[in-house]
Amino acid sequence: MSQKTVLLVYSGGLDTSICIPLMKQEYGYEKVVTVTVDVGQSPDDVKMAAEKAKIMGTEHYTVNALDEFVTDFCWQSLQANGEYQGYPMSTSIARPLIAKKAVEMAEKLGVTAFAHGCTGKGNDQYRIEFGIRSLMPQATIHAPVRERNMTRSWEIEYAQKNNVPIQQSLEKIWSIDENLWGRSIEGGRLEEPDFIPPEEIFQWTKSAENALNEGIVIDIQFQNGVPVAINGDKASPSQLVLKMNQLAGDNGVGRIDIMEDRMMGLKVRENYECPAASVYLKAHKALENLVLTRDEIRFKSIIDQEWSRMAYEGLWWDPLKEDLESFITHTQKRVTGNVKLKLYKGNITVLGRKSDWALYSEDLASFDTTTFDQRESTGSVKNFGLQARMYHQLLKQRV
Amino acid sequence: MSQKTVLLVYSGGLDTSICIPLMKQEYGYEKVVTVTVDVGQSPDDVKMAAEKAKIMGTEHYTVNALDEFVTDFCWQSLQANGEYQGYPMSTSIARPLIAKKAVEMAEKLGVTAFAHGCTGKGNDQYRIEFGIRSLMPQATIHAPVRERNMTRSWEIEYAQKNNVPIQQSLEKIWSIDENLWGRSIEGGRLEEPDFIPPEEIFQWTKSAENALNEGIVIDIQFQNGVPVAINGDKASPSQLVLKMNQLAGDNGVGRIDIMEDRMMGLKVRENYECPAASVYLKAHKALENLVLTRDEIRFKSIIDQEWSRMAYEGLWWDPLKEDLESFITHTQKRVTGNVKLKLYKGNITVLGRKSDWALYSEDLASFDTTTFDQRESTGSVKNFGLQARMYHQLLKQRV
Amino acid sequence: MSQKTVLLVYSGGLDTSICIPLMKQEYGYEKVVTVTVDVGQSPDDVKMAAEKAKIMGTEHYTVNALDEFVTDFCWQSLQANGEYQGYPMSTSIARPLIAKKAVEMAEKLGVTAFAHGCTGKGNDQYRIEFGIRSLMPQATIHAPVRERNMTRSWEIEYAQKNNVPIQQSLEKIWSIDENLWGRSIEGGRLEEPDFIPPEEIFQWTKSAENALNEGIVIDIQFQNGVPVAINGDKASPSQLVLKMNQLAGDNGVGRIDIMEDRMMGLKVRENYECPAASVYLKAHKALENLVLTRDEIRFKSIIDQEWSRMAYEGLWWDPLKEDLESFITHTQKRVTGNVKLKLYKGNITVLGRKSDWALYSEDLASFDTTTFDQRESTGSVKNFGLQARMYHQLLKQRV
Amino acid sequence: MSQKTVLLVYSGGLDTSICIPLMKQEYGYEKVVTVTVDVGQSPDDVKMAAEKAKIMGTEHYTVNALDEFVTDFCWQSLQANGEYQGYPMSTSIARPLIAKKAVEMAEKLGVTAFAHGCTGKGNDQYRIEFGIRSLMPQATIHAPVRERNMTRSWEIEYAQKNNVPIQQSLEKIWSIDENLWGRSIEGGRLEEPDFIPPEEIFQWTKSAENALNEGIVIDIQFQNGVPVAINGDKASPSQLVLKMNQLAGDNGVGRIDIMEDRMMGLKVRENYECPAASVYLKAHKALENLVLTRDEIRFKSIIDQEWSRMAYEGLWWDPLKEDLESFITHTQKRVTGNVKLKLYKGNITVLGRKSDWALYSEDLASFDTTTFDQRESTGSVKNFGLQARMYHQLLKQRV
Repeated sequence: MSQKTVLLVYSGGLDTSICIPLMKQEYGYEKVVTVTVDVGQSPDDVKMAAEKAKIMGTEHYTVNALDEFVTDFCWQSLQANGEYQGYPMSTSIARPLIAKKAVEMAEKLGVTAFAHGCTGKGNDQYRIEFGIRSLMPQATIHAPVRERNMTRSWEIEYAQKNNVPIQQSLEKIWSIDENLWGRSIEGGRLEEPDFIPPEEIFQWTKSAENALNEGIVIDIQFQNGVPVAINGDKASPSQLVLKMNQLAGDNGVGRIDIMEDRMMGLKVRENYECPAASVYLKAHKALENLVLTRDEIRFKSIIDQEWSRMAYEGLWWDPLKEDLESFITHTQKRVTGNVKLKLYKGNITVLGRKSDWALYSEDLASFDTTTFDQRESTGSVKNFGLQARMYHQLLKQRV
Repeated sequence: MSQKTVLLVYSGGLDTSICIPLMKQEYGYEKVVTVTVDVGQSPDDVKMAAEKAKIMGTEHYTVNALDEFVTDFCWQSLQANGEYQGYPMSTSIARPLIAKKAVEMAEKLGVTAFAHGCTGKGNDQYRIEFGIRSLMPQATIHAPVRERNMTRSWEIEYAQKNNVPIQQSLEKIWSIDENLWGRSIEGGRLEEPDFIPPEEIFQWTKSAENALNEGIVIDIQFQNGVPVAINGDKASPSQLVLKMNQLAGDNGVGRIDIMEDRMMGLKVRENYECPAASVYLKAHKALENLVLTRDEIRFKSIIDQEWSRMAYEGLWWDPLKEDLESFITHTQKRVTGNVKLKLYKGNITVLGRKSDWALYSEDLASFDTTTFDQRESTGSVKNFGLQARMYHQLLKQRV
Repeated sequence: MSQKTVLLVYSGGLDTSICIPLMKQEYGYEKVVTVTVDVGQSPDDVKMAAEKAKIMGTEHYTVNALDEFVTDFCWQSLQANGEYQGYPMSTSIARPLIAKKAVEMAEKLGVTAFAHGCTGKGNDQYRIEFGIRSLMPQATIHAPVRERNMTRSWEIEYAQKNNVPIQQSLEKIWSIDENLWGRSIEGGRLEEPDFIPPEEIFQWTKSAENALNEGIVIDIQFQNGVPVAINGDKASPSQLVLKMNQLAGDNGVGRIDIMEDRMMGLKVRENYECPAASVYLKAHKALENLVLTRDEIRFKSIIDQEWSRMAYEGLWWDPLKEDLESFITHTQKRVTGNVKLKLYKGNITVLGRKSDWALYSEDLASFDTTTFDQRESTGSVKNFGLQARMYHQLLKQRV
Repeated sequence: MSQKTVLLVYSGGLDTSICIPLMKQEYGYEKVVTVTVDVGQSPDDVKMAAEKAKIMGTEHYTVNALDEFVTDFCWQSLQANGEYQGYPMSTSIARPLIAKKAVEMAEKLGVTAFAHGCTGKGNDQYRIEFGIRSLMPQATIHAPVRERNMTRSWEIEYAQKNNVPIQQSLEKIWSIDENLWGRSIEGGRLEEPDFIPPEEIFQWTKSAENALNEGIVIDIQFQNGVPVAINGDKASPSQLVLKMNQLAGDNGVGRIDIMEDRMMGLKVRENYECPAASVYLKAHKALENLVLTRDEIRFKSIIDQEWSRMAYEGLWWDPLKEDLESFITHTQKRVTGNVKLKLYKGNITVLGRKSDWALYSEDLASFDTTTFDQRESTGSVKNFGLQARMYHQLLKQRV
């Protein structure tokens, strides 16, 4: 494809839609290819994007990446107990995949120019551009919203002038992002730290008050740190997430309300719905705590924190992230077993966990054992904190 | 007091009760002083201990340490977001205080010999002995249960022979520890990772199912990282905890069920009820996330983890713990403000937070701002992850 | 002073000298105030800056900040064992002080506009601007070299057109930065990882080959983690550094040659001469290892690494840096004592250390002691690594 | 072999020699098998051990483990920049190998009982016993010196009574441990923090004063983080270490004098000679700093510290250590290249480093480049430390 073609990462929203005429009028491209990556957003949105693209005459591709998203991004994050300031990073981890699918399409089409609709204030510009540049170092990337310091009113005016269909965009009050791992709702008063979010913003979860009156007990089977079955039923990765989103959402599980530090230093209140992610993360941790050593649990939390920072920032192909994953992968070999939980009106309660790799020994743990001679602890207790106690002796001498 | 006197840290239970005759018969002491430190266990237990002591003829002291426990131990732990593997360390942080009050009493009485009833398998022996030895380096410490490798059946037999009152001890199925910050229930099948704990073990919390049908909204006021008022009502430290234990417990909040790694390497399942601690910890974190910088939040979690390990191990007077607290105290100067939460059927939901120290700026955060020129982000995005991208260029050259 | 005045942070070099006419011609200022902060660079450079300023007609101030630099910056860094990738951060820690003195002068003169000569590629722009903005949030800052993407040839041409004296600048082959804590030499082939630096770039240190034939033994007295005397002679902070630069430099001590990662991701080879810093850092660490506990030494290295990252980036007034310093200050209370070293042909050899706070006990350490009953270690050794061994038992069962 | 046989880990020294008669007289064994593992100690010592064993009539085995030691232990440690408080852990990392070879021999002979001569005060008892128990969970282990709280005088008397040859032991003033990775000298006044060690304790290194007058320049070739050639000459692992011990020792390189915290809390001064280890560690770090990203360098230092703690404690087969090694191994894939150093009178000076994986780009690094538009840094600098600056604004409002 000629140099005059640009691949637009396309969501169908206002920001990306105006990029279509803009790429021709202002950036000099002859042809715009639009790519929408399906990572679990509303099917209506995927369809709407394709329709808009058709209206505006781009060469449009919809890429189904559901299972790839779960296998290579959600499960990876799960193994790292991936969370940033209380948030399972649903939006963050979809961005690198979108970049990856865009690059794959560009390679197929022989295109090296990209455009995206991210603003200059947020995190996504970093995630998308890092992804594209890592996978295609020679790429040219345009970020028109940022480069032209656009405002929403300017965008609307431009859209109207250029026959860009934006009906739905105008009605939107909130800014929403969705994928299998979660749903974020931002904008307006929602960003204030002490505004109580209205019930209407939630679509995937019932409130605890309105959740089912009977909870459910579920059994999750893990293999190497990732779920493979719910209540004994094996399913594809994306089905395991979709089903759990339903089960947990119906029981009021998965709402998250936090103050979040964005990459550039803005502190913003954020609302998320992450039903499946919340359940799987809690179950995964419970199983890890059964099979990993105390030292592994302690040190892995440092690894997980660093991994999560990098995932949040979209540094998906950073060599340090790969190094961290080598550590994580080695630990997950033993994270195989079952976790039984109860979901009830917003609560996720672990009822039990079992594994062939459990570091639990009934003999050692039980109270009335004779396998352990208590006297042997004497020296260990006596020497415990020796240096700290020498410090206190010196302190007393000084006073 | 003569060298022939020993101070027994006394709970009134079987382990410590048999120590009374034992100290005279087997350790050669002429006099046993018993000290029970009230840190919020059941008032019946405190009273029962005094009665048993009277029956067995010791010089008995009950030390009320409720406010000291909250101010110097619970609040300290709260500022450090103190938790170990999911547990707010209620038992752990009471032990050093018990050691401290025992030493204070010993100093008053001129005693330097101590006895305690900890077994040789658990954590408490480390915590109690480290505390006593730090505060009184010349102390002699006896741990008869450990030193004689006692079993429960031996203890019961010995008690019966020596007229030690143990009626209640015989009836106990579970091993329970209580203080204002939480209640632990151990023993028997409860230690198995996949045994579902029976409802009867819980006394401070209703189940989510049986909790109040109407939740409550509460406002907690923090000053320097510690609560000072609930719904605007100031109260003493211990009252703030007692009241919150009631409010949260009635709403099904505070049950904790984890696998826990004890200090000597045993992995045991543990059940806790920590209603107040759970609420205050969640509120405190929410406020920190409003006022601390992103870097402070990230790094403080490493500090908090280390502090928690030390608190769990009872290293209360370790110089490193003091160093960590210097860091923590400096951060807490700004953790002043209010957090509004809803407690409902097991859920703690943060509804809002505000503070004069909030690093939230409406100007910077809002969407349609003109204070921020998006174009200025271009270079930052372009250079983001530069070395990681060089790595990929080299990788491509190698393939 | 009117809005039409700008305060130029002035070194006398080419970059800052051309800013003088530029501020008037291109930025519209009526008056330029130049400030040179003396942090221990060559006295000739300080004098030369004043002379050039006179020629170009600015209102010029030379600020002597030698003792403040050592007390508040070098000693602070010493207490943190401050080093970044092997470099004692001499240049880095002078920048915040320069910003601070500039702000102090601006406040005195009623000026709120600043200019500096940092390029857009290096670290100093971050350090200087963060300092000014932290201390004077309303400041306007100009960075002409960066903002106009200047090249050296453009600068020379502009200087010649505008009668800016640049004789010395033209002769310079290397880019040099000096202060009491060290001297950096950059530029040209020196930046290549495998170029052997020519002897001529070094001015403060003799080579090991040409160093004195007789080494010297020195005794450094520390109080609270900072030096107070050399060989028993007390001296002012700046004198303690100047004297040690001489003693160590004569003995070939203090040359550093590293690959350094700059803030924006460039990896550059750097050459430094830091004689005093090298000696004091080694002595300080030796004393810490005598008085701090094993756990403090381990954890403080994590604190020190974070502090050093922040100091390298010039985040001098970041609240996290203050938090870290609260930790550090608490540890340094005991870093009081003496360290004896030998300096000889490039080597710094610790010969001995002593302190009233030493956690060394002759009784405990000596071989033939009877104070320690070896049998008491049995249980501790037996239980050591218990979980790791359970892991191996499980492994064997799986195979 | 019958249950009546015990395998003694045998060095030929006093502690282990008396174990031979003791195992029969006091522990009831019929047969003692002695195993001496050659990890690079003095060949005389290895020979002497075999001779003594012959005299005392044990079934004796000498196991040559030189290359295994270097490949699996020294190189592993090198990749982790293994050092503990300044010490390359030579003694520490040989202990697990000794345990491993003992277990291999025991398996061959059908023996499950072990004895070793470690005291109850030191680190080696932990390392040896953890190794044996990890590799053979059913092992029985005897530690007679510890279990009987032996003193040196008792040992000598017992040896004389039982015809144990101890001539050399009596003459020894210092306690010495040697292997390819280093030599430790302990005991007597050497343990005092301020005693200047006499020249006579050193055997592998010349003093800086007496080192060769002409230094040498060497080139070390690394592949995947381990040396493969010196000056282009490939050699076996053990030869690479032996040769470097010679080269470096002759040039006065490798003496180490530190305060060291032993595992049980004793702080002891230690003297080491580690010529090869010192050179390889410095070269390895220099190469890492060329090829790893800034973030990898920063984070790997935390990994390395944890790995080193575990190696020091002999936790060689701990699963966390394996997890850490997965991380390390992934980073070392790029640590391939050459480092040129000069060794001269105690100094190791890096002269240059090169690698195909260097993250050094001449284009990006050079001064007068036009590939980089400095203006693009403006926004990044302006937003740098945003939250820290908001903190200062709030601070000013509060005052």
